[in-house]
Amino acid sequence: MRQIIVIGIGAGDPDHLTLQAVKAIARTDVFLILDKSEERQDLIRLRRQLLDEHARPGHRLVAAPDAERDRTAPGYREAVDDWRHRRADLVERLITEHVGPDETGALLVWGDPSLYDSVIAVVAEVLARGRVTFEYEVVPGISSVSALAARHRTTLTSVGRPLQITTGRRLAAEGIPDGVDDVVVMLDGRAAFTGIDPSGLDIHYGAYLGTPDEILVAGPLEETAPRIAELRRQARARKGWIMDTYLLRRSTD
Amino acid sequence: MRQIIVIGIGAGDPDHLTLQAVKAIARTDVFLILDKSEERQDLIRLRRQLLDEHARPGHRLVAAPDAERDRTAPGYREAVDDWRHRRADLVERLITEHVGPDETGALLVWGDPSLYDSVIAVVAEVLARGRVTFEYEVVPGISSVSALAARHRTTLTSVGRPLQITTGRRLAAEGIPDGVDDVVVMLDGRAAFTGIDPSGLDIHYGAYLGTPDEILVAGPLEETAPRIAELRRQARARKGWIMDTYLLRRSTD
Repeated sequence: MRQIIVIGIGAGDPDHLTLQAVKAIARTDVFLILDKSEERQDLIRLRRQLLDEHARPGHRLVAAPDAERDRTAPGYREAVDDWRHRRADLVERLITEHVGPDETGALLVWGDPSLYDSVIAVVAEVLARGRVTFEYEVVPGISSVSALAARHRTTLTSVGRPLQITTGRRLAAEGIPDGVDDVVVMLDGRAAFTGIDPSGLDIHYGAYLGTPDEILVAGPLEETAPRIAELRRQARARKGWIMDTYLLRRSTD
Repeated sequence: MRQIIVIGIGAGDPDHLTLQAVKAIARTDVFLILDKSEERQDLIRLRRQLLDEHARPGHRLVAAPDAERDRTAPGYREAVDDWRHRRADLVERLITEHVGPDETGALLVWGDPSLYDSVIAVVAEVLARGRVTFEYEVVPGISSVSALAARHRTTLTSVGRPLQITTGRRLAAEGIPDGVDDVVVMLDGRAAFTGIDPSGLDIHYGAYLGTPDEILVAGPLEETAPRIAELRRQARARKGWIMDTYLLRRSTD
């Protein structure tokens, strides 16, 4: 039976790979790569390094240009759904054309595939369509959220309190949710942390976590936000992309 | 300089170990173990297996009975704070007596040390007291939350929506929080999922994740909750302990 593995490969440090991911990579015949048009050279290099080190001799790598998301569409949810369907078309074609009936294909996902990533849903959709059959499994990875906490040597949860993980878009629209003192923000392209009421909040910020370019800043949001925004702008200009996340925590004293 | 490493060792599958954790274990001279009185033989065996495989020859292992938490105290937060101080006393003594000034000591944490675990705070408290000096770092691990999602082959976040991670105690007291459709519940000793309004909710439940005893159940909460509660009761009776977590998701259609 054809096997598909969705493999979480961690947040950027090659040593974030789990032994389970190493073994999954080693038994993969074909890696299926969705190339983003603005693909980042550093990430391509890092992915190649992981495969050079752990993939088996003779493995194949097939790439297709990833579907583009329509960022001008009025409905965010609809635009993402449409994007997902077009990614499913691509993945269906890659599996059909490149993964033999007794072979194993893998899709690599940065961080952990369970957080704001659509590859699991895409693979499930391809299977549900029923035009190609396979078994599939998911290998969890170190998320940027876990990496952020580890690098700052802090916990994400306060004693007995909830943690919310949300997006920059929602933080900008709604601020810190009621009843929550600890909020992790992902997918924040517009530095939403600069636009909320900073009083009583601390930030633990991290970019390029686990890589040589890592940026870590922590402190009261009010004093720290302008400096982080500036560091972020500079880093993005220098490298052409940024991958970052942060924890906002209400000071309890 | 004396080094202390807090190492996340994953949710129960030995292959959840990251390469970073493998390397950290391999450079550790002394493992500091806080023995719980109701310590689970399976977990002790699993921990021993990890060390047999990855620790360096001649490593030492020192254990002390963990501090007991006063579960009859009226204030939850105060009881946990008190417990943490007493754990800091223990860890301070273990480091002082057993980790030489040029040695590396490690504390192993199941899952990821950033979620509902006090070891990072305990180590920071020992350092802040200033009676013993060391450098310390944290190695992230696969949390039971990531493992749950991977085993169910689902994402934790819906498109553009927040995820809340909370405790069984809070779920019992407050139900599903407003504005959130996806909630992961941890530390639920009393099956709080049986006590909330189940309408419109699905559950993805996992116990002993990544181990041979793994239990996975998913479905509408209304039909599934009694079966999960019964499986849970049986498993706990058979093994003497349970480690479980679950995702509650509001059905969107």
